[in-house]
Amino acid sequence: MAPHGEGSDASVEAMVAQVEKHPISSILIIIAMQTEALPVVNKFQLIENPHSSFPKGVPWIHYHGAYKDIIINLVWPGKDLTFGVDSVGTISASLVTYASIQALQPDLIINAGTAGGFKEKGAAIGDVFLVSHVAFHDRRIPIPVFDLYGVGLRQTYSTPNLLKALNLKTGKLSTGDSLDMSPHDEASIAANDATVKDMEGAAVAYVAELLKVPAIFVKAVTDIVDGEKPTAEEFLQNLAAVTATLEEVVTQVIDFIGGKCLPEL
Amino acid sequence: MAPHGEGSDASVEAMVAQVEKHPISSILIIIAMQTEALPVVNKFQLIENPHSSFPKGVPWIHYHGAYKDIIINLVWPGKDLTFGVDSVGTISASLVTYASIQALQPDLIINAGTAGGFKEKGAAIGDVFLVSHVAFHDRRIPIPVFDLYGVGLRQTYSTPNLLKALNLKTGKLSTGDSLDMSPHDEASIAANDATVKDMEGAAVAYVAELLKVPAIFVKAVTDIVDGEKPTAEEFLQNLAAVTATLEEVVTQVIDFIGGKCLPEL
Repeated sequence: MAPHGEGSDASVEAMVAQVEKHPISSILIIIAMQTEALPVVNKFQLIENPHSSFPKGVPWIHYHGAYKDIIINLVWPGKDLTFGVDSVGTISASLVTYASIQALQPDLIINAGTAGGFKEKGAAIGDVFLVSHVAFHDRRIPIPVFDLYGVGLRQTYSTPNLLKALNLKTGKLSTGDSLDMSPHDEASIAANDATVKDMEGAAVAYVAELLKVPAIFVKAVTDIVDGEKPTAEEFLQNLAAVTATLEEVVTQVIDFIGGKCLPEL
Repeated sequence: MAPHGEGSDASVEAMVAQVEKHPISSILIIIAMQTEALPVVNKFQLIENPHSSFPKGVPWIHYHGAYKDIIINLVWPGKDLTFGVDSVGTISASLVTYASIQALQPDLIINAGTAGGFKEKGAAIGDVFLVSHVAFHDRRIPIPVFDLYGVGLRQTYSTPNLLKALNLKTGKLSTGDSLDMSPHDEASIAANDATVKDMEGAAVAYVAELLKVPAIFVKAVTDIVDGEKPTAEEFLQNLAAVTATLEEVVTQVIDFIGGKCLPEL
């Protein structure tokens, strides 16, 4: 297939065709950190599924519940078995997205989480973005076409009515496995024209496209990357407050989705 | 669980306990590039499985066959559906390792492929390394314990008899999603004490440990990272010759494995 830069309209159409005729009945929320996930779990009174379809021994946690005729699945990749910290980053996100789609066959994926924002592009602490495009900034492969594969620019599933109804900001998301930003990353993020930066989004988008499930990305800004404060410090300082905001917006998104078909979003 | 740096002996023991009582009957070879995979496919006359257990639509290819009472499975993640190039890197490697373990329940994983080598650490073009440790060099998370999770240092499954019998070189492998090497990557690779550098190994090791399957890593050097020539040019120049060498060593590894139990390796 010819390489191109703006995602595949054909595959998006195929996604929609599958479920456009009935209201959305099942969603899958992918959240990387427990601190980000628990407010949503509590809000919708989701319960942990002790009999998830995940393989024995993996730390991945499946919460589920129902709200407005929608089955809500929330998957958090859990604490790393060796180090005991949240299993952040693209590899865990890819694996749980893959395994969860296989097990749960959702109509729509919502990847929600915190992100760094660029004030130069209009981001401020506490802003919540509905992402228009995703790309990677730490997969540099300087061989023709491999370079485009590495960047992996994808358009997200388009939800113009949702964006308008919730009055969210929109912008492009750049994903990489580091919390900091090296000069090489910075150049790639600028090339990706990104307003927000996270550690999972483009990986979730890759797997969602592979398995033809539409995916949207709700990212709340915990730190200003092009600001004065060190990222890690600012991130930890704002994490609790911003996850509360994130929960509110995820709730609004689910409220909006209720009773609608995909093309109505 | 307390963080530590040298992989978990307990989980390695659990792996071994499962299969130590019978000769290895099934192996899974994970290879990222078609050029690397086909010599092995041809050598063992493996055939493509048109009814693989992989989901509909994914580009992943499962080859299989038998040799010396061993079922040989070789999985190549195939050509990217959007860009048409080999699906290299940690995300595809993680996904196919996960899906292949689920489908094939192998006794042992062999991740084989090309790598960059450091002449300062004794690597030369065409050398084949049996890797002792793997780690990531592009997952910088400067928060206590998250930093160790990001690096993800793991000991590979130890095969002292195989190493001796085949007279291979051994060294540490550092994995990242870029073919080039930024100054930040270089510092992390040095901290990882790596002799070879690839784009998949530590990801395969992560998933193998998650699902408790022992894994070994056979990496053939196509380019000298700390040499004069640009990596991409040297890589493409040596790819064909080095993949022939890689096939020879993979064949020797499989020959050695034949009839043996895991603890005999």
